[in-house]
Amino acid sequence: MLAAVYAGSSTIDIITRNAEPPAPGEVTVRVAYTGLCGTDLHILHGNMDSRVKLPLVFGHEMSGTIEAIGSGVDGWAIGDHITVMPLDWDGTCPACRAGNEHICQNLNFIGIDSPGALQGAWNVPARALVRLPASLRLDHAALVEPVAVAVHDVRRSELQAGQKAVVIGGGPIGVLIATVAREFGADVIVIELDARRRQQIESLGFTTIDPREQDQVTWVDNWTGGAGADVVFEVSGAAAAVLGATDLAKVRGTVVIVAIHPEPREVNLQRVFWRELRLLGARVYQRADFEKAVELLTDGAIPAETLITQIVPLSETREAFDALEGGRAMKILVDVAGQA
Amino acid sequence: MLAAVYAGSSTIDIITRNAEPPAPGEVTVRVAYTGLCGTDLHILHGNMDSRVKLPLVFGHEMSGTIEAIGSGVDGWAIGDHITVMPLDWDGTCPACRAGNEHICQNLNFIGIDSPGALQGAWNVPARALVRLPASLRLDHAALVEPVAVAVHDVRRSELQAGQKAVVIGGGPIGVLIATVAREFGADVIVIELDARRRQQIESLGFTTIDPREQDQVTWVDNWTGGAGADVVFEVSGAAAAVLGATDLAKVRGTVVIVAIHPEPREVNLQRVFWRELRLLGARVYQRADFEKAVELLTDGAIPAETLITQIVPLSETREAFDALEGGRAMKILVDVAGQA
Repeated sequence: MLAAVYAGSSTIDIITRNAEPPAPGEVTVRVAYTGLCGTDLHILHGNMDSRVKLPLVFGHEMSGTIEAIGSGVDGWAIGDHITVMPLDWDGTCPACRAGNEHICQNLNFIGIDSPGALQGAWNVPARALVRLPASLRLDHAALVEPVAVAVHDVRRSELQAGQKAVVIGGGPIGVLIATVAREFGADVIVIELDARRRQQIESLGFTTIDPREQDQVTWVDNWTGGAGADVVFEVSGAAAAVLGATDLAKVRGTVVIVAIHPEPREVNLQRVFWRELRLLGARVYQRADFEKAVELLTDGAIPAETLITQIVPLSETREAFDALEGGRAMKILVDVAGQA
Repeated sequence: MLAAVYAGSSTIDIITRNAEPPAPGEVTVRVAYTGLCGTDLHILHGNMDSRVKLPLVFGHEMSGTIEAIGSGVDGWAIGDHITVMPLDWDGTCPACRAGNEHICQNLNFIGIDSPGALQGAWNVPARALVRLPASLRLDHAALVEPVAVAVHDVRRSELQAGQKAVVIGGGPIGVLIATVAREFGADVIVIELDARRRQQIESLGFTTIDPREQDQVTWVDNWTGGAGADVVFEVSGAAAAVLGATDLAKVRGTVVIVAIHPEPREVNLQRVFWRELRLLGARVYQRADFEKAVELLTDGAIPAETLITQIVPLSETREAFDALEGGRAMKILVDVAGQA
């Protein structure tokens, strides 16, 4: 079978590997589609070299079917449509013991810390499987993982129906958060610098703001009758966005830190104090988020057709990353099984 | 009657004023003791000149008795022992309508935005009165306001009995937070740079850490079995403390921003994200906090004798501020009624 591996120094090799039988407790997944994401780009750029073991088969947003079942695995049949929640926790650390297994202090993130989904036959622990209904197309199902991120972010924010939310940053995760928040009954606007992205987001029915054209604080104040937004999602990763985010939130409002900020960022703590704001970190997802994401995609609540801008064969993984980086794509899927 | 007024340019004048009768809805309070605090120092240094109207009778931590009662005021009698919750909200702004009157978007903070308690006869709205039991000494009762700050901070953190809390900064508010948190059943340690303060805090039964002598992250990790603290209170106002605070909190732990940070501060958002931390702003208090503070002081749970390091006559207000600034005092009371 073919696999795409990160070989260090920004290099992707397409290699041929022998498939291995599943170990006890594992299944072999015939991978259909694997989505490429920002974290994969971080890996490719070497930002995570201290963490990953080379060569790494990467990829963690996927859909597929069960091809083989290891000993001790119950409840699954060959041919079942599945996706994988790529988290493997130790169950013994303080975070796990407190019920926060998803951010286990010794988490194995499958596809980063162990081999991922850019390969035809992928052995994964059966406990990581999430069932897909047959009615959900496998290309759309490759979006379950990023949609689960968005569901987690929105659930963590405790956003309620009828409330107002601001999403800063209209990339794939920002758009998914906006979509999920709207699906939860909130009014949502998206702040985004890129004109083409704004157009795309508006085509999905959202109001967008270019903060260089309009004063975002005044806009949000007017929109909210002088109160400020109930929830602000910081998805841009930009220093200026972080500094401005606190000015958009209402008294006792919530700012969710979704983006990765490798460097410490200046935060307006005076505003945090003055308005008794709540800043929340939100990372990955829990099983309930995955199940909600499957439901939203199955119900057509997520505009999968608009979001999937390209599907490429495994041999073109490198070019797909270049397109992703150039901002020319929302979500690119790799057709791992060669069905497209 | 005598009053201490901030007259601009770091100047305090001791003046003689005529007492005025209470307006409808007001009472005249015969002020017994007024405590001096960091906010008063900010006023004195001119940091709040854009907000205050000169000359300003300042002071907002106090105790006293009712001397006269305006029309339309029910439920109070001359001679009642009282303190004042110095917040006057408009009741109509979005924050008030959402039940957060204590941080009203147009809050009148009595003693900053309107005349305060460094005067013998003080007219205040009756709705701001908080009843004191006769068994609570009036000098101790001047601590109700700062204790209410601490109660608010601890309640806002949702700290539970049996949990572990770190207080960064062992000034008067830090010590009160530590005391209240311990009273709520938590294990508490205090991080403080000043050796004399550490000694004082240890005499109250707390463990202290000098972060220049011991690695605070390692210490807290060992103390918490590798989990991190449930709650971290940032009371120091220092940039380095903010940057380090997030490393002390457990997965899904809470960092409460108590101190005033006039400038934006660098925050380790990577850690906030990674551990799904919660940063909370906490400002002033609600009536329940004041009532709890009265109860704690009446029960002797607050070491008032240790905390009140000095009581001075009104004529020595200026010297008292100098002592406060020099770090030579925990809490200084002004004996406004001249009883001492």
